[in-house]
Amino acid sequence: MSLIVQKYGGTSVGNIERIKAVAARVKTWRERGDRVVVVVSAMSGETDRLLALAKEIQARPNPREMDVLLSTGEQVTIALLSMALGGVGCPAKSYTGGQVHIRTDNSHNKARIRNINGARVEADLDAGCVVVVAGFQGVDEEGNITTLGRGGSDTSAVAMAAALDADECQIYTDVDGVYTTDPRIEPRARKLDRITFEEMLELASLGSKVLQIRAVEFAGKYRVPLRVLSSFKTGKGTLISFEEEAVEDAVISGIAFNRDEAKLTVLGVPDQPGVAYKILGPISEANIEVDMIIQNVTADEATTDFTFTVHRNDYEQALEILHSTTRSLAAREVSGDDRIAKISLVGVGMRSHAGIASRMFAALAKEGINIRMISTSEIKISVVVDERYLELGVRALHYAFELHHADGGC
Amino acid sequence: MSLIVQKYGGTSVGNIERIKAVAARVKTWRERGDRVVVVVSAMSGETDRLLALAKEIQARPNPREMDVLLSTGEQVTIALLSMALGGVGCPAKSYTGGQVHIRTDNSHNKARIRNINGARVEADLDAGCVVVVAGFQGVDEEGNITTLGRGGSDTSAVAMAAALDADECQIYTDVDGVYTTDPRIEPRARKLDRITFEEMLELASLGSKVLQIRAVEFAGKYRVPLRVLSSFKTGKGTLISFEEEAVEDAVISGIAFNRDEAKLTVLGVPDQPGVAYKILGPISEANIEVDMIIQNVTADEATTDFTFTVHRNDYEQALEILHSTTRSLAAREVSGDDRIAKISLVGVGMRSHAGIASRMFAALAKEGINIRMISTSEIKISVVVDERYLELGVRALHYAFELHHADGGC
Repeated sequence: MSLIVQKYGGTSVGNIERIKAVAARVKTWRERGDRVVVVVSAMSGETDRLLALAKEIQARPNPREMDVLLSTGEQVTIALLSMALGGVGCPAKSYTGGQVHIRTDNSHNKARIRNINGARVEADLDAGCVVVVAGFQGVDEEGNITTLGRGGSDTSAVAMAAALDADECQIYTDVDGVYTTDPRIEPRARKLDRITFEEMLELASLGSKVLQIRAVEFAGKYRVPLRVLSSFKTGKGTLISFEEEAVEDAVISGIAFNRDEAKLTVLGVPDQPGVAYKILGPISEANIEVDMIIQNVTADEATTDFTFTVHRNDYEQALEILHSTTRSLAAREVSGDDRIAKISLVGVGMRSHAGIASRMFAALAKEGINIRMISTSEIKISVVVDERYLELGVRALHYAFELHHADGGC
Repeated sequence: MSLIVQKYGGTSVGNIERIKAVAARVKTWRERGDRVVVVVSAMSGETDRLLALAKEIQARPNPREMDVLLSTGEQVTIALLSMALGGVGCPAKSYTGGQVHIRTDNSHNKARIRNINGARVEADLDAGCVVVVAGFQGVDEEGNITTLGRGGSDTSAVAMAAALDADECQIYTDVDGVYTTDPRIEPRARKLDRITFEEMLELASLGSKVLQIRAVEFAGKYRVPLRVLSSFKTGKGTLISFEEEAVEDAVISGIAFNRDEAKLTVLGVPDQPGVAYKILGPISEANIEVDMIIQNVTADEATTDFTFTVHRNDYEQALEILHSTTRSLAAREVSGDDRIAKISLVGVGMRSHAGIASRMFAALAKEGINIRMISTSEIKISVVVDERYLELGVRALHYAFELHHADGGC
């Protein structure tokens, strides 16, 4: 008998038929003897409907009241799902975030969970109930309703699993697992049975939108086994586990990509201490997040070229800031490009296998793809290329590392 | 500087424009220097929408979950109204029933308020905020969400006013006050400036649907001055006050009526002790509420005729029950009539004025209206007549007691 926390997103509970389907699925787990806690999102479309109401009143709605408003979305779902569970003979009790003491800080609209008191949920589980909890929401120290921001229901589920010391946290979504890359780009992309937390973090942050990154971090920190699976199909999905447990020892797990970035370069900066800070300080003050950063000494050794990437939406603003910084730094010029794409190879096996980078560069070179930036971490190599080479690059790497074979990636 | 609790019903907050209008109205009170607590219902249509969702899942939805579901309706309104207040420069904070500790018993869907802790609301008022509270809802001892049943927002407002020792509880609705009778039946019906709690109770329970009867009882018990007024028009509405304060000393305040009842008679019941119990026991066991009850000795003095009224919806079932009771009681026969109407004259002045009943019966007789049942209380005389005489009877009495004159009713 296991304790399972399941999370169903907005699409999975998007209408009454789907809520009934979720109830039926939960019932099969109960019938196996498992104890089940279900965390749900608002029905798809509901959050947008509420947002639109608020926007009719205030262009920038009051954040505290926004949370009071938006948290009703999940509350509707927990009630309906509990009814549906009752309807199929599964006694169930629903709780809002506040009712099960999901304590957060007081950052409305983007609160972070501090702790959860699982006592009440455990009592209900002991009494044979399925417990249905509203995702995405909590209360601060003073009992004000908070929300975790969009997608926060994943984090709610993981936090609940951690608090209850659950055997597994299952995230049901509209995809059936984590793939070696996006199947829309590489049709031979293969679903992974297992992946490590670190790999998942790199894949998630690099644009595979399967799981909320904070939820993955949380699960890694509290060592909650996490599984991604489909609400609509059967199958075991992908288990996100700890490195020592990983059975597939492929070097490379997957290829992530991102076309939301833009690249900015300051050329010919006099090479003095504090250059990086002088360039990036004003960018960060404007609340622009920087992703990759590269600094190279130039041929004359007296100046340096400094390149970084930002979100494409921030490109124009960042360029403007750079122009004024450049003047004060007496740098030669500023250039930029918002038609780039980032492709990243991710895999814990890199740690113990040499030659991954050169194999990657060779595969890209063979296709005539020019690499514009390179950045590496322990389990990831990212390259920036012209946007038009994105699909070609992803496919070339997928093939080169044999990711379409279950025993590939080595 | 007064402390005012205002309650706005579903129609008054039925869309964004109306919510903004409520905010503007609240602002005028704030600008007079009053401290204001606002209690709101769900936007009109919202409760029905939620109910329909529940019914799609379960024909008889789980009562606990129903409360979790329905309470979201008011929660949406408090958030939107607080935003609208912020938008017009009136700082506001919203609270659910649970957040301001509106403690109820645990009768889901029809809970009763036990107590309210006003401390948090008072702190916000002291800080210069308008406090917006979700009506209709509370939490039980264990923190489960409860609702007070339809119309319960009136009770929430009165209970909040009692807890805060407010100077006045204002119920904003789509009528501008309490009338001497329904203006759709008697166009000369006149709005009352004042009425006593006892009169209001009789008028409310007899079918004037202005105020929830429980709210009036609550206000009377805790001596909260209650005022009914229009959300859409200006005007002072009707103040419901205590007898000693009533300035208009009209004998009769108004005429209520009800066409939702049906009459049942058991003829020729052997006159023994316990007859009433034997007849009404099975009716009450079937959860049918009985309104008027009359028992008369017949000419032969050995048998009695027993008549009572029930809600028209319960008529068929009550008749069926009576048929079997009648056999066991050896009564002669059962008859019934569901085409009746009840007309009631209400006024505290009856206590000190004789001859009201005979004047009432004379007025009805003059129009050829046959009285089928009579029942009296200290401040009310009700008659049952054929349904087709309802309008004629109401108008005749309105005229006979000169209710269209401000100095009438005496």
